[in-house]
Amino acid sequence: MATVGKAIKCRAAVAWGPNRPLVMEEIEVAPPEAHEIRIKCRECRFCRNPNTNQCDQSWPGKRLEVSSDTTSRLKCRGQTLLQYMGTSTFSEYTVVKEIAVAKIPDSAPLDKACLLGCGVATGYGAALNTAKVANRDGRNQNWVEQHVLTVEPGSTCAVFGLGAVGLAAVMGCKAAGASRIFAVDLNKDKFPKAQALGATDFVNPKDHDKPISQVLAEMTDGGVDFALECVGNVDVMRSALESCVKGWGVSVLTGYNDSQDMSTRCVQFLAGRTLKGSLFGGYKSVDSVPKLVSDVMRGKLQLDEFVTKTLPLDQINKAFDLMANSEGIRTVLTVSML
Amino acid sequence: MATVGKAIKCRAAVAWGPNRPLVMEEIEVAPPEAHEIRIKCRECRFCRNPNTNQCDQSWPGKRLEVSSDTTSRLKCRGQTLLQYMGTSTFSEYTVVKEIAVAKIPDSAPLDKACLLGCGVATGYGAALNTAKVANRDGRNQNWVEQHVLTVEPGSTCAVFGLGAVGLAAVMGCKAAGASRIFAVDLNKDKFPKAQALGATDFVNPKDHDKPISQVLAEMTDGGVDFALECVGNVDVMRSALESCVKGWGVSVLTGYNDSQDMSTRCVQFLAGRTLKGSLFGGYKSVDSVPKLVSDVMRGKLQLDEFVTKTLPLDQINKAFDLMANSEGIRTVLTVSML
Repeated sequence: MATVGKAIKCRAAVAWGPNRPLVMEEIEVAPPEAHEIRIKCRECRFCRNPNTNQCDQSWPGKRLEVSSDTTSRLKCRGQTLLQYMGTSTFSEYTVVKEIAVAKIPDSAPLDKACLLGCGVATGYGAALNTAKVANRDGRNQNWVEQHVLTVEPGSTCAVFGLGAVGLAAVMGCKAAGASRIFAVDLNKDKFPKAQALGATDFVNPKDHDKPISQVLAEMTDGGVDFALECVGNVDVMRSALESCVKGWGVSVLTGYNDSQDMSTRCVQFLAGRTLKGSLFGGYKSVDSVPKLVSDVMRGKLQLDEFVTKTLPLDQINKAFDLMANSEGIRTVLTVSML
Repeated sequence: MATVGKAIKCRAAVAWGPNRPLVMEEIEVAPPEAHEIRIKCRECRFCRNPNTNQCDQSWPGKRLEVSSDTTSRLKCRGQTLLQYMGTSTFSEYTVVKEIAVAKIPDSAPLDKACLLGCGVATGYGAALNTAKVANRDGRNQNWVEQHVLTVEPGSTCAVFGLGAVGLAAVMGCKAAGASRIFAVDLNKDKFPKAQALGATDFVNPKDHDKPISQVLAEMTDGGVDFALECVGNVDVMRSALESCVKGWGVSVLTGYNDSQDMSTRCVQFLAGRTLKGSLFGGYKSVDSVPKLVSDVMRGKLQLDEFVTKTLPLDQINKAFDLMANSEGIRTVLTVSML
């Protein structure tokens, strides 16, 4: 190709500072350096362990570097741009580490597959991969002690927050065979979509004077088997944990919050509750994204409900406004090539 | 027997109020009422579930009642005495629910078996029962994904606090085949006993300027696989969790604290750490205490290290002082019959 070894100029949405609108800019994307990443996925002890999708080379701790020399490949107006999450995808071109790339079929619908980069995979996988616990034999209801499964068939689940992650968690709970799925949100307009994806019961904290953990305990004889937090609010995290049944209840965090501690009384744990969490739904991306894309193409995984608007890249700030105002679920940005 | 259906007078140590020494008193123990407890162990959904030792009839929530009508069977100086944890064992006689009783052999050494009522069983079981996680096949080191075990052979463990519970946790980690067991305590005099029970490395926070989680991360290439908190201090709980390796690290709480919240950043969980806890080491007492007693009688479970003094019941306050001052591990009280 004519661009091999040369910088490419292209359009990108650049964040020049916190709490400021992104600005469409022409940026310069340097070519990747040969053999610059020598460590492959599946080579570190985390990648070899099926219990985690963490990697020694990935976030957290290294969120801004794309290359081994920690410099970015992107420049604009003479300044080096930091690459968010090691990718920077609000741009027509980018350079990423090879461990950040998954191969999907040429025929995959990109306007839907893009939802699997985080969001949908995060919530869906939190239910299917992260909430593991010993489970019952589905046929005779004997306990199978030496056996790990996910949200088990017949279990009760609660999903806190019905954005893209929470709706995907509802979908994951349904796929796992949960008998009751409680959808919890302050905005009742979210409930019909949650119902379409599998939620069976709907709880709006505005409708109750008592704590939601108490409301759910009364609706479920002591609490739910699994509670998934999909907001990123530390009070909701506490509420989700405390909504779990004692003895074996598992709460899974998917929401992110790095400005506040989450807290609870230790008796929650002494009474047998477990608190877990995951990034990207516990999926090992290189292996799992192609499988998820295949599930979408086979109709097993529905993404249509998640796309509520499509906008061109230069309207990115409008897309953020829609998200901030809870208008719709996800806006897909089309990145037109110059 | 001559006392059937009649009250028995006997000596007991009575706590008349918080932060006051216990007082030796003559108390009156009413006879148990026929069929007063109709609910047996193994009849509730918790007792039928192998993942928990919680019971609908037991603590938490019902710690003071021994009988279905919530009255106590103990009286002293005209007042009804509350029965702590449903038992009240600082007395020559007591009346307890049948679910609080386990049958052990007549030949069992009572001066050691008494340590299995909590303390030793709590720490030992926290390592053996509570810290479950998918584990490797010991022979070929392949991952066995559909398999739950405890602290796995070859794993690294840290035990925070070296009282009876912590020392028992060290013993449990050793029994589970841990390759390294870090014993953490502010009192270096505790280290020899921890070493005798299986600890391989010793960390005194007083010797370090940096957080213990960082010290342990440096000693273990990122953190330990399992961290057991055996203090009941919310700062130590946080430290134990943060000492776990990302991806699959599991922290188990055994210490109790109902006056403060424990807290941490949610990224600890998003990065793949799990926080669990248990009461009484996760053992279902009616089944497990006889097995533990049998382990003691066969020499499989060593309790000698835990008994550092024996005193008569009327010196109970001295025993509490010894514990409060970290002098020795456990004082066994002999309850002489009048």
